[in-house]
Amino acid sequence: MSAITRREHDLLGDRDVPGDAYWGVHTLRATENFPITGTPISIYPHLINALAAVKEAAALANEELGLLSAEKTAAIVAACQEIRDGKLHDQFVVDVVQGGAGTSTNMNANEVVANRALELLGHGKGEYQYLHPNEDVNLGQSTNDVYPTAVKIATVFAVHGLIASMSVLQDAFARKAVEFRDVLKMGRTQLQDAVPMTLGQEFSAYAVMIDEDRQRLDEAVQLIHEINLGATAIGTGLNAPAGYAESARRHLSEITGLPLVTAANLVEATQDCGAFVQMSGVLKRVAVKLSKSCNDLRLLSSGPRAGLGEINLPPVQAGSSIMPGKVNPVIPEVVNQVAFEVIGNDVTITMAAEAGQLQLNAFEPIILHSLSESITHLRAACLTLAERCVDGITANTEALRASVENSIGLVTALNPHIGYTAATDIAKEALATGRGVAELVLEKGLLPAETLAALLRPEVLAGSGPVAV
Amino acid sequence: MSAITRREHDLLGDRDVPGDAYWGVHTLRATENFPITGTPISIYPHLINALAAVKEAAALANEELGLLSAEKTAAIVAACQEIRDGKLHDQFVVDVVQGGAGTSTNMNANEVVANRALELLGHGKGEYQYLHPNEDVNLGQSTNDVYPTAVKIATVFAVHGLIASMSVLQDAFARKAVEFRDVLKMGRTQLQDAVPMTLGQEFSAYAVMIDEDRQRLDEAVQLIHEINLGATAIGTGLNAPAGYAESARRHLSEITGLPLVTAANLVEATQDCGAFVQMSGVLKRVAVKLSKSCNDLRLLSSGPRAGLGEINLPPVQAGSSIMPGKVNPVIPEVVNQVAFEVIGNDVTITMAAEAGQLQLNAFEPIILHSLSESITHLRAACLTLAERCVDGITANTEALRASVENSIGLVTALNPHIGYTAATDIAKEALATGRGVAELVLEKGLLPAETLAALLRPEVLAGSGPVAV
Amino acid sequence: MSAITRREHDLLGDRDVPGDAYWGVHTLRATENFPITGTPISIYPHLINALAAVKEAAALANEELGLLSAEKTAAIVAACQEIRDGKLHDQFVVDVVQGGAGTSTNMNANEVVANRALELLGHGKGEYQYLHPNEDVNLGQSTNDVYPTAVKIATVFAVHGLIASMSVLQDAFARKAVEFRDVLKMGRTQLQDAVPMTLGQEFSAYAVMIDEDRQRLDEAVQLIHEINLGATAIGTGLNAPAGYAESARRHLSEITGLPLVTAANLVEATQDCGAFVQMSGVLKRVAVKLSKSCNDLRLLSSGPRAGLGEINLPPVQAGSSIMPGKVNPVIPEVVNQVAFEVIGNDVTITMAAEAGQLQLNAFEPIILHSLSESITHLRAACLTLAERCVDGITANTEALRASVENSIGLVTALNPHIGYTAATDIAKEALATGRGVAELVLEKGLLPAETLAALLRPEVLAGSGPVAV
Amino acid sequence: MSAITRREHDLLGDRDVPGDAYWGVHTLRATENFPITGTPISIYPHLINALAAVKEAAALANEELGLLSAEKTAAIVAACQEIRDGKLHDQFVVDVVQGGAGTSTNMNANEVVANRALELLGHGKGEYQYLHPNEDVNLGQSTNDVYPTAVKIATVFAVHGLIASMSVLQDAFARKAVEFRDVLKMGRTQLQDAVPMTLGQEFSAYAVMIDEDRQRLDEAVQLIHEINLGATAIGTGLNAPAGYAESARRHLSEITGLPLVTAANLVEATQDCGAFVQMSGVLKRVAVKLSKSCNDLRLLSSGPRAGLGEINLPPVQAGSSIMPGKVNPVIPEVVNQVAFEVIGNDVTITMAAEAGQLQLNAFEPIILHSLSESITHLRAACLTLAERCVDGITANTEALRASVENSIGLVTALNPHIGYTAATDIAKEALATGRGVAELVLEKGLLPAETLAALLRPEVLAGSGPVAV
Repeated sequence: MSAITRREHDLLGDRDVPGDAYWGVHTLRATENFPITGTPISIYPHLINALAAVKEAAALANEELGLLSAEKTAAIVAACQEIRDGKLHDQFVVDVVQGGAGTSTNMNANEVVANRALELLGHGKGEYQYLHPNEDVNLGQSTNDVYPTAVKIATVFAVHGLIASMSVLQDAFARKAVEFRDVLKMGRTQLQDAVPMTLGQEFSAYAVMIDEDRQRLDEAVQLIHEINLGATAIGTGLNAPAGYAESARRHLSEITGLPLVTAANLVEATQDCGAFVQMSGVLKRVAVKLSKSCNDLRLLSSGPRAGLGEINLPPVQAGSSIMPGKVNPVIPEVVNQVAFEVIGNDVTITMAAEAGQLQLNAFEPIILHSLSESITHLRAACLTLAERCVDGITANTEALRASVENSIGLVTALNPHIGYTAATDIAKEALATGRGVAELVLEKGLLPAETLAALLRPEVLAGSGPVAV
Repeated sequence: MSAITRREHDLLGDRDVPGDAYWGVHTLRATENFPITGTPISIYPHLINALAAVKEAAALANEELGLLSAEKTAAIVAACQEIRDGKLHDQFVVDVVQGGAGTSTNMNANEVVANRALELLGHGKGEYQYLHPNEDVNLGQSTNDVYPTAVKIATVFAVHGLIASMSVLQDAFARKAVEFRDVLKMGRTQLQDAVPMTLGQEFSAYAVMIDEDRQRLDEAVQLIHEINLGATAIGTGLNAPAGYAESARRHLSEITGLPLVTAANLVEATQDCGAFVQMSGVLKRVAVKLSKSCNDLRLLSSGPRAGLGEINLPPVQAGSSIMPGKVNPVIPEVVNQVAFEVIGNDVTITMAAEAGQLQLNAFEPIILHSLSESITHLRAACLTLAERCVDGITANTEALRASVENSIGLVTALNPHIGYTAATDIAKEALATGRGVAELVLEKGLLPAETLAALLRPEVLAGSGPVAV
Repeated sequence: MSAITRREHDLLGDRDVPGDAYWGVHTLRATENFPITGTPISIYPHLINALAAVKEAAALANEELGLLSAEKTAAIVAACQEIRDGKLHDQFVVDVVQGGAGTSTNMNANEVVANRALELLGHGKGEYQYLHPNEDVNLGQSTNDVYPTAVKIATVFAVHGLIASMSVLQDAFARKAVEFRDVLKMGRTQLQDAVPMTLGQEFSAYAVMIDEDRQRLDEAVQLIHEINLGATAIGTGLNAPAGYAESARRHLSEITGLPLVTAANLVEATQDCGAFVQMSGVLKRVAVKLSKSCNDLRLLSSGPRAGLGEINLPPVQAGSSIMPGKVNPVIPEVVNQVAFEVIGNDVTITMAAEAGQLQLNAFEPIILHSLSESITHLRAACLTLAERCVDGITANTEALRASVENSIGLVTALNPHIGYTAATDIAKEALATGRGVAELVLEKGLLPAETLAALLRPEVLAGSGPVAV
Repeated sequence: MSAITRREHDLLGDRDVPGDAYWGVHTLRATENFPITGTPISIYPHLINALAAVKEAAALANEELGLLSAEKTAAIVAACQEIRDGKLHDQFVVDVVQGGAGTSTNMNANEVVANRALELLGHGKGEYQYLHPNEDVNLGQSTNDVYPTAVKIATVFAVHGLIASMSVLQDAFARKAVEFRDVLKMGRTQLQDAVPMTLGQEFSAYAVMIDEDRQRLDEAVQLIHEINLGATAIGTGLNAPAGYAESARRHLSEITGLPLVTAANLVEATQDCGAFVQMSGVLKRVAVKLSKSCNDLRLLSSGPRAGLGEINLPPVQAGSSIMPGKVNPVIPEVVNQVAFEVIGNDVTITMAAEAGQLQLNAFEPIILHSLSESITHLRAACLTLAERCVDGITANTEALRASVENSIGLVTALNPHIGYTAATDIAKEALATGRGVAELVLEKGLLPAETLAALLRPEVLAGSGPVAV
């Protein structure tokens, strides 16, 4: 904080703000009113950039409609571009958990843009008579259209980042699917030995899951391109002149490079959080699959001696201060935990969306916060899993093949040839005596040796399922 | 239960089953093993029909491939058609909450189909030497492909029913949107008076929400057309002959009338529950919106004197045994509760999906159960809300218009004409004195009377937003 | 439905009800208004009995205060006792999911009690001029105090049943803890081999978990003994005469045998659902522990050859129609699913509790429904797990001991004697070569043979932790 | 980072760490392995202090047992005391979301304590030959007993802070309950006008809810005093000498001032997360009640003209950039959002607890993280609500009284005097005509004026319920 302050005024009276702060009185009050997490909104750069993009688009639309002078417009646009270049983000200081439906975030943006624009125009900060946070920067806008629009744009960019990191993970799994395409192993259902498959098939499933989830995310992100800019307070567009909504949307699409669409029913769009609930639901789906895959990796790498011991995860740190040589599956474990967090966040988002009343949802800030957390943590988790775990996985090929040869599940493949009843008898005897299925079949003369060998060839046992995506 | 029994045999030994039961020993053990809810799977007729459809398609495919005689095929097909006609549903007696990944449900179906087919062939129940539940009815199949396929088909039909009931509700809201298109009222944000709108706009938002949700459901249901029939135990297709998967899919599509698709990667498809998680996520979205709309209806109809009193819900029952004349919003309340149930079910489904291990998810029965409950209860809730509440809603038109004329929020509309500062002063004075905004504006000579009247015309205040969908 | 009907009247007009129905017009409307689940409230006998107990206690209090004649009181009491003896439960037909804060359930009870009492007095059903559902049976009461009081009493009895079944399960685990007290095995952390323990210690942990959970349930159930009978509509006790609340509580305590307490602040008690949220939270805790224990049982019994294969669950049904001889852990699986359901129900209850507004929570019916489902399903799950699974578990003692002798984790026990650095070297060499720790220690002369043998004795390795509860 | 580094060694090889860092190679690897949230564990000072307390207690126990020299012990104790005085917290740099069951957090603590102790002994950082992070600081310990013990102690202190802030809020509500004790108003059930009460009774309910929740928290926090220090890796106490557990517990109790208890069954205690699930369940209860109270405050203060308008929340910031003079209930709104977050966190904690396997729960870090977030955010929310909202609430006393006099609900009070049927008729007529109940009763001569006046006195209508706690 600076020793030199400037005085600002709002509905509630006068307050001194630090002289070097780009934010003003509304932001000051918000920081005092919401001392909840200690984390400022600048933690989400996509949001700050999106707010600047909206302010820039609105200024250009207002200029186009003759409502804002070229000079003011140029200053606002320049200030917004600086922000979109990553500058002044430290001036976005309102807490991520805040009341007021995002008003304080919008006010924070209005004030920072105004004060930076004032400087660019040669004025001092706070000289709002030359360019006003509300009357100029916020012209034709309401928090209730600016904020959801910015949140959507921020979410689109964040999800793009997540999708890219999922591709990295998908590729890592797919490479392993190819590498392990000939590694025969026992498949399991309900944790009980079932029938043979290849380790490549197992990893191909993980790759395919991510591929499908990427498609689902891609669909969900399309829904978020529908914005309500121009709705102003409740969707009736009061005080936004004719042509404003379309002009602002056009500029915003150009600035962001996104094919944004204005909602057909702005009253509905202003109160609705459905697209966020849908997005969170898809993120939850991603989390569920990732967690399931990590559960499998931890299970398959259990051991080294008293576990399944099918694969080896690359060691990335010592596992224990008390047990020498112990290495733990810490990377899958951290991914599991991110998944649990995302699933919890989905409940938070659901409750916040359900709690919206009448023409607005006052709880969008926690929706933004939870959504952003889910997206950014999932993104980090996917990259970490790919690079620090999957890439380095190796298979215990010989032990895996031995487990197939030693398995009772082999008998299933003989089912069509020796009959279900005989097969059941062989299975029972193998289990009771510890002997092998093939050995018993031969001993009882149920099949000739060469037929048996043909039936138990890996490619027959593991089917012809696809290996990679 | 019949006094006369027949003896059946399985892996664990012999058991007597009631002589008139179409189910057999596997079903018997399942009913003993899972005494959890007391509710049998027959509560979900879509599922029973879908199981019969799968058995019928498999029989036809097996016949086509020369694996099943024409006689046996005809008997199985006839039995399945009876079931799909609604017969024998009472023979599906396994508990809805069951272990075994659906094996007991599949076994129950195999046994009922087999015993009915035996009768049609002129044999007695239990004479499996002529037609066997596992070897004939289940030929080329595994629970692990039959069960998820049947669950998906059942879900498709159930969701179709839900979508239809949502259309009924959407139409009800849309009719009210037209009826109330000229009813001016105050819009509210954060429960505080905001700016004017029409009651028609308010109801149009509810209609649009449902319309969008129907589209989302329609998209989610597409994903459920992808089946894994032919995967057998773990997706490698072991013991399913070449051509079987495609033939069975073709027959199943014809029987159900659904454009089913076989998954490209059957190993993945056999272990994956992503489409169910996605579907539940969309159902949760529907629930969130429905609940929000019902919260609004309850709020808008609060009163009759000490509430908002904007609309009147039709009375459907006396509200209190102690308070004479009290009528409560019981229909929206029951819808809210269904929504809470659906949101809870989503968590159940999420946990079950996440808990799947390796090549199979053993917890699909609870996924089916929760999903079916969510879909059928939502369907009932939508119809009830439309027919017993929305259709009969009336508006307190005059009081609503008076609240607009009396409102301070009118000043927002004057903002561009008298300036933000003057508007704020008018707002403050109106609040402090209890006087009207228009009256104060005229008194202070801020606007000529005719200009003021023009600015405050309903169509100006409420904007030009769409009214119905 | 009977062909002969009687006409009844309420606020909304006249309706014909079946002549033989004990319920009346209010119940009729409720069944029409709430066609949601098809499941009537009679599915919860504890609730029906509790309602009858409340009505009986209220009648006795009213008689004591001179407000109800001895004749009417005797008839009401006799009718209530019949209900508490299990009669007339089929007359409780309102849907478990209903609007109206339980009003329809209370009305259903008032009508059934009144009509049965009328019969006992020699009158016909519906002759309310002699004894009235609202004015006599409901005298001094409101749904808003009757319903929560009945729900609490029903919950107390249901939880008692759950606690008893948990004791059965605890005993089953404890017996196994004793049986397996000398079975040495490898303990695992993060699924990696850690240090030795006994299988008895492992099972003792499951027993202790249940023991602790029983204590938590017992504490939570105490909170539910606080009732608000006498609060009437909103807690102000309007229309309940002085002395009524205390007299009704005393009678209700006597009838139920429960030490009920009247809340100190009846306004708070009438709107508050905290005790239900707390109870559901503890049920969730029980579910979490049960699920974890079942996850372990499924993991430890994985195999028979390609799994951990430490223990054998008793086979209770054939596991697969395609894989001969396969047996699955179906009992733990069904318990897992009940746990997922309970966890989902907790979210439903949480949302319903949060949604209460002002002087009443209108969503208690779904709280009751979800809570009852959680309690009764958990009860069934515990009994099933004990009797159909835990009781029959056997251990693969020799393989377990071999896994300890073969383990690298043994080296941890030598740590204090050969040093962390030497221990790490041994661990690395054992892992790389596949050789045993003891063998390597002897070969390198790090410890004399007898010292080594002493250090590796089972009782040393497994510590002296308690075995059973 | 310093340009000068020192080389450290672990199981995976050598790494350079910054020369001025108190943390070492294990921490370095952890920061690389877990780049998830960017938030270090130092964000939770209670946890850092608790870790230091555990390390200090262990050192003192080891000295007592003759396992650690007086000199080393003194250095470790001094280092720990510095940390507990708030120093070196910036050296705790591992991410809050991490794999490894807390191992990295424990390693971070071991390294910081060791390096600070080394300095105090006159050695350089990293000269572990004089005092070793694992062999000395971690002596007789395992992450698996240190980490849960520290998490519990941290949680106890955090909850104490929460309870204190809840007292502040309770007092604020209680003061309002006294201030508003004579303010008569309409009570509402299901948002419909019910019967009269006082505003003081309404606020007393909020105070009582918090009071009860504080008691529940206090009970839940008792369960967290049970620790497993001395359990080492899996609860068997391997490598912890006789007497160590008791000595360490005693020292830890003295250091923290908490009556800690060692669990009776350390195997169970080491794998169990029940106490955390219980604690989170109670935090959820607190959240539910707080959210409900804030929903009420927002509802009661709705308006200023088209809402209930019963109370006024103090304005703390301008509510809108577009609507002059609008003030929003931002403080209750932020509390609602914290509540949604806490409820979501409970799901995260539940899933993490359920996912624990065999002898350890690997997911305790996310449990700690979510629990800490819930506690600290709730604490901030309670203080903010008390100080920035409740303390400044005023009542619209006259309008409230008028709403009672104008209400139809008054008729309920006349019920015992004019009969239910006559009362219903009056209610219907009042509703239809807009006239007053008292007026109609007098007009019809149903009661003498003085009787009527007596029946409608505030103290009669509002009952004699308690006003404050």
